Amino acid sequence: MIGMEAFQKKKSGPGVERATVSEPKMGDADVLVRVKAAAICGTDVHIYEWNPWAQGRIKPPLIVGHEMAGEIIKVGPRVSNLSVGDMVSAETHIVDGTCLQCLTGREHVCRNMKILGVDRDGVFAEYVAIPAHNAWRNDPSLDPRIAAIQEPLGNAVHTMLPNNNVEDIAGRNVAVIGTGPIGLMAIAVAKELGAAKVFATAGGHNKTRMKLATTMGADQVLSSSEMGHDAVVKAIRDATDGNGVDVAVEMSGQPDGLYTCFEVLTAAGRVSLLGVYDKPFEVDMNRLMVFKAATIYAISGRLMFRTWYQLRGLLSRPSFRDKIGKVITHTLPIKDIDKGFNLILSKQASKVVLTPNW
Amino acid sequence: MIGMEAFQKKKSGPGVERATVSEPKMGDADVLVRVKAAAICGTDVHIYEWNPWAQGRIKPPLIVGHEMAGEIIKVGPRVSNLSVGDMVSAETHIVDGTCLQCLTGREHVCRNMKILGVDRDGVFAEYVAIPAHNAWRNDPSLDPRIAAIQEPLGNAVHTMLPNNNVEDIAGRNVAVIGTGPIGLMAIAVAKELGAAKVFATAGGHNKTRMKLATTMGADQVLSSSEMGHDAVVKAIRDATDGNGVDVAVEMSGQPDGLYTCFEVLTAAGRVSLLGVYDKPFEVDMNRLMVFKAATIYAISGRLMFRTWYQLRGLLSRPSFRDKIGKVITHTLPIKDIDKGFNLILSKQASKVVLTPNW
Amino acid sequence: MIGMEAFQKKKSGPGVERATVSEPKMGDADVLVRVKAAAICGTDVHIYEWNPWAQGRIKPPLIVGHEMAGEIIKVGPRVSNLSVGDMVSAETHIVDGTCLQCLTGREHVCRNMKILGVDRDGVFAEYVAIPAHNAWRNDPSLDPRIAAIQEPLGNAVHTMLPNNNVEDIAGRNVAVIGTGPIGLMAIAVAKELGAAKVFATAGGHNKTRMKLATTMGADQVLSSSEMGHDAVVKAIRDATDGNGVDVAVEMSGQPDGLYTCFEVLTAAGRVSLLGVYDKPFEVDMNRLMVFKAATIYAISGRLMFRTWYQLRGLLSRPSFRDKIGKVITHTLPIKDIDKGFNLILSKQASKVVLTPNW
Amino acid sequence: MIGMEAFQKKKSGPGVERATVSEPKMGDADVLVRVKAAAICGTDVHIYEWNPWAQGRIKPPLIVGHEMAGEIIKVGPRVSNLSVGDMVSAETHIVDGTCLQCLTGREHVCRNMKILGVDRDGVFAEYVAIPAHNAWRNDPSLDPRIAAIQEPLGNAVHTMLPNNNVEDIAGRNVAVIGTGPIGLMAIAVAKELGAAKVFATAGGHNKTRMKLATTMGADQVLSSSEMGHDAVVKAIRDATDGNGVDVAVEMSGQPDGLYTCFEVLTAAGRVSLLGVYDKPFEVDMNRLMVFKAATIYAISGRLMFRTWYQLRGLLSRPSFRDKIGKVITHTLPIKDIDKGFNLILSKQASKVVLTPNW
Repeated sequence: MIGMEAFQKKKSGPGVERATVSEPKMGDADVLVRVKAAAICGTDVHIYEWNPWAQGRIKPPLIVGHEMAGEIIKVGPRVSNLSVGDMVSAETHIVDGTCLQCLTGREHVCRNMKILGVDRDGVFAEYVAIPAHNAWRNDPSLDPRIAAIQEPLGNAVHTMLPNNNVEDIAGRNVAVIGTGPIGLMAIAVAKELGAAKVFATAGGHNKTRMKLATTMGADQVLSSSEMGHDAVVKAIRDATDGNGVDVAVEMSGQPDGLYTCFEVLTAAGRVSLLGVYDKPFEVDMNRLMVFKAATIYAISGRLMFRTWYQLRGLLSRPSFRDKIGKVITHTLPIKDIDKGFNLILSKQASKVVLTPNW
Repeated sequence: MIGMEAFQKKKSGPGVERATVSEPKMGDADVLVRVKAAAICGTDVHIYEWNPWAQGRIKPPLIVGHEMAGEIIKVGPRVSNLSVGDMVSAETHIVDGTCLQCLTGREHVCRNMKILGVDRDGVFAEYVAIPAHNAWRNDPSLDPRIAAIQEPLGNAVHTMLPNNNVEDIAGRNVAVIGTGPIGLMAIAVAKELGAAKVFATAGGHNKTRMKLATTMGADQVLSSSEMGHDAVVKAIRDATDGNGVDVAVEMSGQPDGLYTCFEVLTAAGRVSLLGVYDKPFEVDMNRLMVFKAATIYAISGRLMFRTWYQLRGLLSRPSFRDKIGKVITHTLPIKDIDKGFNLILSKQASKVVLTPNW
Repeated sequence: MIGMEAFQKKKSGPGVERATVSEPKMGDADVLVRVKAAAICGTDVHIYEWNPWAQGRIKPPLIVGHEMAGEIIKVGPRVSNLSVGDMVSAETHIVDGTCLQCLTGREHVCRNMKILGVDRDGVFAEYVAIPAHNAWRNDPSLDPRIAAIQEPLGNAVHTMLPNNNVEDIAGRNVAVIGTGPIGLMAIAVAKELGAAKVFATAGGHNKTRMKLATTMGADQVLSSSEMGHDAVVKAIRDATDGNGVDVAVEMSGQPDGLYTCFEVLTAAGRVSLLGVYDKPFEVDMNRLMVFKAATIYAISGRLMFRTWYQLRGLLSRPSFRDKIGKVITHTLPIKDIDKGFNLILSKQASKVVLTPNW
Repeated sequence: MIGMEAFQKKKSGPGVERATVSEPKMGDADVLVRVKAAAICGTDVHIYEWNPWAQGRIKPPLIVGHEMAGEIIKVGPRVSNLSVGDMVSAETHIVDGTCLQCLTGREHVCRNMKILGVDRDGVFAEYVAIPAHNAWRNDPSLDPRIAAIQEPLGNAVHTMLPNNNVEDIAGRNVAVIGTGPIGLMAIAVAKELGAAKVFATAGGHNKTRMKLATTMGADQVLSSSEMGHDAVVKAIRDATDGNGVDVAVEMSGQPDGLYTCFEVLTAAGRVSLLGVYDKPFEVDMNRLMVFKAATIYAISGRLMFRTWYQLRGLLSRPSFRDKIGKVITHTLPIKDIDKGFNLILSKQASKVVLTPNW
C-alpha cells in the first residue's frame, strides 16, 4: 500500500476535506486496521463545526474520527496477543502506562492521555494504526456497524456502573436526563440491568428521539420544553411514590438537565454525570447536592477494559444487540460524510455510521 | 374470631398436625394478617422430617411456615404506616432493633433474631400476627402465590447482589451451583440483571429441575452425576475462554457443589455462598480460596429492606414476574399440606404454594 | 421536678432568652437526660443570629441546642436497652423508621426527619427528653465535654468515610478545605486513619485556627487570603508530585473553597462535600467535576449508627481523644451562653462547650 | 561487568549454594539493579528446605530471593520513566498485561504470572534484572532494609484493605491471627489505620513474637497453646461486648487459626485470608461462614500498584516506619545467608535482612 483515502481537518476552519494520504506509520507495538465501519461522535461534530474547544485543541492536518470497527491487516513485532484477521474496535484513550492513574486502575484518566482522532490521526480513513493495547477484539460475527459504536455504548455502561463496586441498578427506578445517542443507549442499558421504571427526559421536543427513547425501553418519556421543568420533576416524583428515583444520570449537557437530575433524585441516591456543558453556570450546591446527601460519579470515558468486557457480555444478548442497533438511524457511505454531519446537526439523526465506500 | 385452623408441630417427631387453635395474640406494634397464600420452604421440610437441626431448635407446640402473602385485617395501636386491607408479605426475621448489627445496617443478622415459624408461631394457619416492621406491603395486583415466595426470591437477589456496593452482574458470566427453588430463581435473577452466560449445575440428574433451569434462562445446564465433576468444570471453563466465570453462587449445599463453585471461578472473581451443608467437610482452602484471591460473600437472609425494594422493582417487570411464577410447580389447598411435603421430599416439585382452602 | 431552666428562642428575632419552663414531656420510648455538657454548633449560631434560614424554619418558642452529653434520669416504659445512670449523647436526627431511606440503611436522611433543637426542644436546658433510639451510650469515663461534641466529630468521620464501602484514606494525600471546628476535626481524623500528607486550607487568615490545624496534624496549612487562590492550589499540587491529592473534603462553605477542592484533586480522585453555602454560585461543572472523573460524596449528618460505633472506637485511642479535646477552645458556664455565641461570631473561638452552671 | 556472586538453588535438594555467574541478561524494557538489601521470605524458606511445593515448582539452577531494594545501574532502551541512580524495590509478580485479569485491574493475579526468584532468577545476587513495570521507585532517603520488606508489608496492607472500595478499619475492633512477620506488620497497619482494639493470637507460645506483637501495638496478645483455643475466642468476645471483632485476618496458615478467625468475628463482619495451609482440612462451612454472613477476601499478593502507593504514604509517617523496622530482628551479611535461614527455621528471628557483603 502506498497511499489511502481519508477525511482530514486540513487547516483551521469548519468542515473536513477528502485527501489521499500516505498509509499510517506503525509503531512496534501497534496494529494496522482496515476500517469496516466508523461512526460520528459529538466530538467529531465539534471538530467539524470548529467550535472554540476544537480551535484550542486540534492541530491540523489531522484525520478525524475515533469510533470504528475493522480488521487487523498487520501487527507490529512486539504484539503477541492479536493476529492478522482479528476483528477489532478501538479504545480511543491512548495512555502512558506509568502515571499514578495508570498504575491504580484508572488508565481511562491517564495523566498524559492522547486521544485518537483528536491528538493523533483517527479513523475516517481506509486504514488506521493503533496501539495493540487499544485494540479490542470483537466477536467476529458482530455486525461492524454495532461494533463501531461500542465506545459510546461503553460510556453508557460506565455511567450506569461507574466503579468496580457500585450501587446496583437492579429493581431501582432510574432517570436518564437527555436523549442523545448515549442517553438512548443508557435507557437500554438500565433496562437490561434490571431497572424497575426508567424515566427519560428530552430537553427539546424531538419526536424522533422521544420515540427512540420508548423503543429503548423507557417507561415514560418527558419533555421539559413541552411540559415545563417543574412538571417533569413532579411527574417523576409522583411516579415513584414521592421518593424520587434511586439513580439519575445526566447526559443532556444542559443546566436545566443538571437541575432536573438532582431534583428527581431520592435522598442519598446516586447520580452519574456524563454531560458536558457549554460554559459555567449557577448551581445551588446546598439544595441539589449537599442536603440531598447524593453520591455523584463524574464519568469520563470507559474503564479500560472492565467496561469492554461488560460490553462483550451484554452484546452477546441478542435482544440487547438488536435494540442498540436501532440507535443507528442512518448508515451512509463514507464519501457522503458531510451528509452525515448535517443529519446530526439538524437533529434528524441519532447515530450515523459510515461504511468504507470511498 | 374465637379460633382458627392451623398446622402445628404438636410434639417432638415427624409431620405436622391440623388443629383448631385460638387466634394469634397481637402486640401493640403488630398487624394481624389473613393468609391468602403460603409456600413450603426447605426449612419447613426439615421441621416436618424432624431432622437433627429441628430437634435442637423447635419447641412444640408451634405453628409452622413462614413464606406467605395475606391481607391485613387488624392493626395494633402503635402502627401508623399500614392499614386494614393492605396486602402484605412477611419478612421472617424478627429483630431487636438495638444490637450492633441492627444499628449498623445489618438487621438481617440481628444478634437476638427470632424467626417466624421457627421461634414463634408461623403462617400455616388462617391468621398470623407479625410486627408491622416485618410486614412488607405488596402491590395489590400481585398474584398472592408469587407474593408468597418473595422471601426465597429475596435470598436469590441478595445472593446475586450481596452488599450495598458490589461487583455487578451486568455482562458477566455467572455460574449457579444447584437447581433447587432458590437456585432456579437465581438463574432468572442473573439473566434479569444483564448476565452474559449463565451456567447452571445440577448435582443430581433431575430432568424437571434441569428443564426449569433452561426456562429460567440458563445458557447451559450441566449435571455432574451425568457428566462427572471434572467434565462440568471443564465445560464451564471452556465456554469462558478458559477464564472461568466472573461470579459463582453456591446453592447446592453439597461439598461437590462448593468445590465446583470455586473451580469454575476466574482469579479474583466473586462467590456468594447460600447453601447449607449437612456437616463439616474437607476443604482445600489454598486451592479453592486463597490462591484464587476470591471475594466471598456468605449470605444469610435478605437485606432489610433494601432487597425487598429491589424485589418490588424486579417484580414490576412482567417477563420476570412470569418467569418466577414458573418456579411454582404445584398449587394445593392447604388441607393437602402433607401431599405438598411429599412432592418436595420425592423431588417431584420445585416450589409448592398452599391456598387457604381448609 | 416541676420546672427547669432553659435558653429559648422565645419569639422571632435575634438572641436567646433564659426562661423557667416545665420539665420535658416524655414519650413511652423516650429517655429523660440531665445535661452535663452542651456545645454550640454553627446551626445554633444561625438561630441565634436569626438568619433567613432560621426565620423560615424555627417556630418559637423553642429551646435551642442539640450537641450534648448527659445522664439518664428516667426511662420510658418501652425502653429496654438503656437504664437510669447511663451516660449518653444525642443523635440529633429523629427519624420515622418507616420511609424508603430508613428502611434502606439511610436513616440519616429520613424523609420525615425532625431535628433536636430545631424542630423540637433542644439541649440548652437542665433536662431534655429524647427517643431512646437517639440516645447513644457513652463510655462512662469519657469527659462529658468531649462526649458533647461527638455529633460534629461524627460529621468529620462520615465525611472521611462516607459509605459502608469506600475508598480508604490510608497512605493517601488528603486536603481539608476549611478550618472551622469540623474541618479541624477532619484533619485529626485523616491523620488517625493513616493519611500520608494532610493539607489544610484556611480561607481567611485566622492565626488561632491555622495553629490549631497544625496541632491537629496538618502537614501544611495554607491561607488563600494570604497567598492567593492559585498559589494554594499550586502548593498542594507541587507537594504531591503534580498529581494532586487523592481525597479532598470541602468544609469551608465558600465558593472559593469548592473550587480549590476540585482543583487540587487528582484525576478520578474522591471528594466529600459537607460545607453549606450562602447562596447558589457559578460552577464550571466540566472542569471541576466531569473532566476530573471525580467521585463525590455529599454529606449530611452521620450514619446511624455506624459512625457512632466508629467514634466510640476512635475515642478509645488516648492520643486521638486528647487531640479532639483541643478543638474546644472555651468552656463556659451555660449562664454565660451569650458570651459563647459572641466568641464564635468574632471568630475567637473554635468549639465552645457549656457546663450546667445556671 | 563480566560476572557476579549469587546464591542459587543449583540442583534438586535442600539448601542454596554460592556461585559466580554471569550478569543478568536484560530485556529492552528491563532495568538492571544493584541489590542493596534483600530479605528472606517464607517462600524462600520453602525453597531452601525443598518442601513438596518447591519440588513441584522450582526448576534449578535458579537464583533465589525476591524481596529487595537496590539502585538502578542500567535501563533498557524502552524504559522512559526510570533512570540510573533511582532507588527501587521489586514487585515480584511479573505479568503479561493482556489477560482478563490484567485488563480489569487485577494484574496481581495475572493468568500467566511469573514470580521473581521462583520462576526466574531472583535477588540473592549482586545484580538483578527486572521489568521496568515491576520496579517501584523508593524515596531515596528510605533505609534500604525497610525498602526491602515492602512486599510483605504490602501483603499486610492489602489484607487490611483488600479492594478499592472496602469496609474500613477506622474505629473498628480487629483480630490478627498469627504473629509471623506479616502478622506483626498487620498489627501495626491496623493501628495506623485507626483501629480501636487489635487482638493478636499466636498459635505457639513464642515469647519473642508475642513481645513484638505488643510493640506493634496489639492491645491483647493471646496464645492458644497457652490458654487453649476456646479461652482465646472467649477472651476476644468478652473484650468486645460479646459482639466479636469487626474484622479478622487469618495469617497463621493453621486450621486452628482459621477456626479462631471466624469464631471471633461479629455477624456480617469481614475476614481476610492470607495464610497458606499445609493441606486440606475439615471446615464447618455453615457455622464459620454461611450462618455468620461473613464477607471474605482471599488475598494474593498486593494490588499493582495501588498498594505500593499506599506503602509510600504510610512509610512517610515516621512512627510507622520506625515500628515496621522493628520487625527486622536480624541484619546479616549475605555471605551468612545460611545463618539467616536457620534463625528463621528455629523461630528465633522474625524478619532477616541481608546486606551485600559478599
